[in-house]
Amino acid sequence: MGGMPMIAQTEPLVPSIGWSVLHLFVKARGAVDCDIVHDAKDVLEKAGGQVVTAAILGHKADACVMALSEDLWDLRRLQTEIERSGLEVTESYVSLTELSEYSQGVPEQMREARLHPKLPPEGLRAFCFYPMSKRRGEIHNWFSLPYDARKELMMAHGKSGRAFAGRILQVITGSTGLDDFEWGVTLFGGTPDDIKECVYTMRFDEASALYAEFGPFYTGIVGTVDEVLGTLSR
Amino acid sequence: MGGMPMIAQTEPLVPSIGWSVLHLFVKARGAVDCDIVHDAKDVLEKAGGQVVTAAILGHKADACVMALSEDLWDLRRLQTEIERSGLEVTESYVSLTELSEYSQGVPEQMREARLHPKLPPEGLRAFCFYPMSKRRGEIHNWFSLPYDARKELMMAHGKSGRAFAGRILQVITGSTGLDDFEWGVTLFGGTPDDIKECVYTMRFDEASALYAEFGPFYTGIVGTVDEVLGTLSR
Amino acid sequence: MGGMPMIAQTEPLVPSIGWSVLHLFVKARGAVDCDIVHDAKDVLEKAGGQVVTAAILGHKADACVMALSEDLWDLRRLQTEIERSGLEVTESYVSLTELSEYSQGVPEQMREARLHPKLPPEGLRAFCFYPMSKRRGEIHNWFSLPYDARKELMMAHGKSGRAFAGRILQVITGSTGLDDFEWGVTLFGGTPDDIKECVYTMRFDEASALYAEFGPFYTGIVGTVDEVLGTLSR
Amino acid sequence: MGGMPMIAQTEPLVPSIGWSVLHLFVKARGAVDCDIVHDAKDVLEKAGGQVVTAAILGHKADACVMALSEDLWDLRRLQTEIERSGLEVTESYVSLTELSEYSQGVPEQMREARLHPKLPPEGLRAFCFYPMSKRRGEIHNWFSLPYDARKELMMAHGKSGRAFAGRILQVITGSTGLDDFEWGVTLFGGTPDDIKECVYTMRFDEASALYAEFGPFYTGIVGTVDEVLGTLSR
Amino acid sequence: MGGMPMIAQTEPLVPSIGWSVLHLFVKARGAVDCDIVHDAKDVLEKAGGQVVTAAILGHKADACVMALSEDLWDLRRLQTEIERSGLEVTESYVSLTELSEYSQGVPEQMREARLHPKLPPEGLRAFCFYPMSKRRGEIHNWFSLPYDARKELMMAHGKSGRAFAGRILQVITGSTGLDDFEWGVTLFGGTPDDIKECVYTMRFDEASALYAEFGPFYTGIVGTVDEVLGTLSR
Repeated sequence: MGGMPMIAQTEPLVPSIGWSVLHLFVKARGAVDCDIVHDAKDVLEKAGGQVVTAAILGHKADACVMALSEDLWDLRRLQTEIERSGLEVTESYVSLTELSEYSQGVPEQMREARLHPKLPPEGLRAFCFYPMSKRRGEIHNWFSLPYDARKELMMAHGKSGRAFAGRILQVITGSTGLDDFEWGVTLFGGTPDDIKECVYTMRFDEASALYAEFGPFYTGIVGTVDEVLGTLSR
Repeated sequence: MGGMPMIAQTEPLVPSIGWSVLHLFVKARGAVDCDIVHDAKDVLEKAGGQVVTAAILGHKADACVMALSEDLWDLRRLQTEIERSGLEVTESYVSLTELSEYSQGVPEQMREARLHPKLPPEGLRAFCFYPMSKRRGEIHNWFSLPYDARKELMMAHGKSGRAFAGRILQVITGSTGLDDFEWGVTLFGGTPDDIKECVYTMRFDEASALYAEFGPFYTGIVGTVDEVLGTLSR
Repeated sequence: MGGMPMIAQTEPLVPSIGWSVLHLFVKARGAVDCDIVHDAKDVLEKAGGQVVTAAILGHKADACVMALSEDLWDLRRLQTEIERSGLEVTESYVSLTELSEYSQGVPEQMREARLHPKLPPEGLRAFCFYPMSKRRGEIHNWFSLPYDARKELMMAHGKSGRAFAGRILQVITGSTGLDDFEWGVTLFGGTPDDIKECVYTMRFDEASALYAEFGPFYTGIVGTVDEVLGTLSR
Repeated sequence: MGGMPMIAQTEPLVPSIGWSVLHLFVKARGAVDCDIVHDAKDVLEKAGGQVVTAAILGHKADACVMALSEDLWDLRRLQTEIERSGLEVTESYVSLTELSEYSQGVPEQMREARLHPKLPPEGLRAFCFYPMSKRRGEIHNWFSLPYDARKELMMAHGKSGRAFAGRILQVITGSTGLDDFEWGVTLFGGTPDDIKECVYTMRFDEASALYAEFGPFYTGIVGTVDEVLGTLSR
Repeated sequence: MGGMPMIAQTEPLVPSIGWSVLHLFVKARGAVDCDIVHDAKDVLEKAGGQVVTAAILGHKADACVMALSEDLWDLRRLQTEIERSGLEVTESYVSLTELSEYSQGVPEQMREARLHPKLPPEGLRAFCFYPMSKRRGEIHNWFSLPYDARKELMMAHGKSGRAFAGRILQVITGSTGLDDFEWGVTLFGGTPDDIKECVYTMRFDEASALYAEFGPFYTGIVGTVDEVLGTLSR
C-alpha cells in the first residue's frame, strides 16, 4: 500500500461476557497459500481463540472458517490473513456467544459450554450453519408475546432438541444488532442425516413453526486445514 | 498452492440411510477440459456413485451435473474437479435421498427406488430441477397441521402425480437443514410439455396450492458428457 | 476445449404439441461478431424455427433474441452460438407455446396462431417481455378457485385485451415447471404507449388485480439483426 | 465488430403522445471520455430531446443521465454512446411522460408541462429518483378500488404535494408494462431536506400510506456534464 | 479522462438545517494508497466536516467511512477520492442529520447534538450501522397511525433507549426520499455486547416490535485511518 503504516498496535475490543465469533465462508478462486492459513490459525489460538475449518459443498462457498476470540481486532486480522492467502470471503456471519434470557439460571457447566464452547466437538464431523430470526409478522409476532409465553415455547423447543444429544451439538450465538439475523446456528452432527432429522423435527415445534425465519444454509464436513484446503486443490 | 499438502486421505462421512446428492449448475466461461469431467465421473462411479449430466437452457446455467454418492467428501472432490475442468459452479443444491415420514411402510422395491435410485431413467430425457419448501404462512402453515392432515394431503398429491407414471420420473430428495429449501425435486420427462403438464396439474392439489413455496426452475436435456459439453463448445 | 469431441449428433427432444421458446437477453460487453449471429439465425430458420431480435433499453440488456423451435437442442445450440459471437446472456426465459386449459375449443386458426405463431408481426415494432404467475396468496389464491370461476375471470381478461386488437399482439407461452414464473408474455405494439396503455388497462381486470404477480419487464424495439447490433456498435 | 455493418438508418419509433424517457445510472470504472458524453448530449438535443446530468452519491451510481426524446432508437443510441465513453450503466429506468387518467381535463399549460417538461428546472439542484407502484396487497389493493375512490385519493395526494410548489418540481413518468414499477418519480429540489420533507410528508397521505410500494432511491446534485464528470475524475 | 476538464468549481448544495451524511462501506481489493484517504479526510475536516473510520468484520465490507458535511458536493468528492485510493465502495447510505417531528421542542443542547453531532464519541469504539423503515403492513401501518399515537410510541422507545446512556451513543439520520430506508442508525458502544443488548432490548418496544423493518447490519470497530487500513494490509 502507498504510504501504508506498519500495522498499528490496537487496543483490544472485547465483549463484557463471552466471545466474539466470526464465520467466514470462502472460495478458492485461484492459488491458495496454505501456510498463511495455518499461521493465522496459530496466531489466534495462541491468543486464546479457536478456529474450526470445514469443507462446504455447492456454489455458496468452498470452505468455512469459524473463528472465536475475545478481541474483535483479532478476528478482523484473521479475516485479512485469510484473504491474503488467496481465499475470497463470499459470505460471513458476525455474532457473540451468549446465555439467552431464558437460560440465565443454568448450571455453571452449561453456562460455560455456551459462553466458552470447545470446538469442534469430537466425532461430530457433519457441519451446518444457518442464521435465523424470530418472526415479526402481522399476526404472529414473537416480540409481542409476553416473556412467560416465549420462555415456555423455548423450553419445549429445547426439550425437542435434547432428544438429539450425542448426535448433534448445537452452538447458538447471538447477533441482534450485529448481523442481518438475530442468531447464528452452527450444528455439528454425526452424519448428514442427523442434521436433517434434527432440523426437520424441530421445525414442527411451535417456537419454530409459527415464529422462526431462516436464512441460507451452508453444509459441509469438519476437517483439518490440510484436509479442507487439500480437497480444493486444483 | 503455496505449501499445499497432498490431498489428505479423508475418513468417509456417509449418511446412515440413503445417499448424499449434489446438483451442480455450471457455466462454461472459457475453455473446458472434457477429460477432467470424464475422469471425475469415472472416479465417482467406481466408488459406487452416479453422475447425471444435462444441458441447461438460459442464463442460469449451461449444464447440470447431478451426483449421488455415499461419501460427502467424494461429492466435494467431484465439485473441485468440475471446477478444475474450467466449468464455473453458479448454482447448486445439497440434499439426501430419503423415505418421507409419510412413506415409511412402502414396499421394499419402492423404498429402494427412493433411497438408491438408478439415474438417469431410460427414455426420459427432458430434465427439470427445482427446490421447494412447505409454506409457513401466517394463515396457512404446513408445520402447524396435525400429522394425519398432512399425510392425507400428501397421499392425494402423490395420487395426482402417479397419473404421470411412465411419462415422468420424480426424484425427491430432502434438504431441511442442508440447503435453503426443504426438498429438491428432479424431474425426468418424455417431453418438455410432459414436465409442464405434470407440474401445472399438481399445482392445483391442495398440498401444493395452499402449502408449497417454489425456488428457481432449471430446464434442460439429459445427455452424455460429450453431448452436453459438445453443445457448449465455442 | 481439451479433449473436446466434435459436437455430437443429438436426438431431437421436441414437445408433443407446440414449440419450444427461448428468450435470451444479452449484453455486448466487447466486440460482437455479427456473422455468427446471422448464421445462428439462419441455421434455426432452416430447421423450421424462428428468431426475433429486438434492441432493449436500460441496464438489464442491450438486446433480446427470442427463438422458437421444435427441438430443445436447437435452442441450446443457438444460445451457445450467440455467446460465441461475444454477446453475454444476462437474463433469459424458457417456455413452450400452448393452448391454455380455457381455450381448448377455439377455432383452428386461433389454435394455430397460439401454437405456431408467425413472428414478428408486421408493423408492431414496440417490444415488451415479462414473466408472470398467478397469485397463491394466503387470502387470494388462484389455484384454490374452481375451474369455472377461473375460466370466467380469464374470459373477461381476454375480452379486455381484445380491445387492443391491431395495436397489440400478445404471445403468451407456458412455463410452469420450466422457468421461475408460470407464463411468459411477449407483447408487440404499434407504439410504446400502446403497450403501456394495454398493460395498465388490463391490470384493473380482476384476474390481474387480485391474482397476478409480475416479474421484471424488458422494453425495446424490434429490428433486424443489423439494426439491433448496429446500434450497439462501440 | 466482426462483420459489423454501418449503423443502419432506423425508422423512428415514437409514442403517440408525450416523450420517451430513459434514466441511466452509471459508474466510472476507469477512464471516461467526456467528449463522447458531450457529443451524445448534443446529438439528442439537436433531435429535439433533452439530457439532464446529476452527480449521485453512494454505491449505486456515480451519476445519472436522464434523457427525454421522441424516438426510442435515439435513446438506445445515447445509451450505447454513454457506455462507449467508459461509463458503465449499472441501473436504469424506462418510462414515458404521461397525463394520468385523473388529470385528463387539466389546463393546456399543465398538460404541456407533463407531456413535454423543460428540464432541469432553474435553481432546483437537489436531485432524486425512485420508482413506485400502487399496492396490490391481499387487503389493500389499489386496482380493486373504484375510479372515484382512486381519483379522490390522488387529488388529496396532489394537494399535499402542491404545498411544496417552488421548492420541489416533481416529474412523474409512466412505466406500466415498460419497467418493473408502474411509475418513475424524478424530484428536483432547492435543498436535500426539501426532498426529504416532501417525500416524508406525502408518505402519510392515504394514497401513499396504504397503497404505495417504493423501489430504490437515488440521490444527487444536478450539474453540467463537466461538473458531474469532473467530480468523478480519478 | 479524454477531454476531461479541470474539476469545476461547484456551487455548494447544503441542507437548510443540519448536515449531509454519507456512509461508505468499502473493500480493499488490491493496494490502497493511505495518503489519499488521509488527505481526503483532512480536506473535508478543513471545510468543517467530520470523518469517522471503522474496521468492519465479514464479507459486506472491510471498512466504513462515515462522513458528515454541509455541502453534498464535498461528500461526492470525498467518495471519489476514497475510490481513487484503491478502496471499492460496495455499499453506502445517504442521509441528513435531523430533529424528528417528535423532538421539535427539545433543549438547545440536545437539538445541537442531533443536528451537529461530534463524532466519534470518546471511549465508545464498538461500531454498528443499519438502516430501518417504519412498517407499512396491511394490518400494522405506522403511516396510518395518528400523530399522538406515534409520538407516544416513540417516547416509550426513546425511554427504553436512554437506559443505555453512557454505554451506547445512537445517531439517527433521516433518509426518506434520499435512500432505500427511512432512517440510518449509527451506534457507538463500549463493547460489542452493549450494542447487542441495546438493539435486542429495544426490539420488544411496541414501536419496534410492530412497526420496524430493518435493513442489513454492519459491525466493526472505530479506529484511526491508520488502525483501520493497517489491519487490512495484505
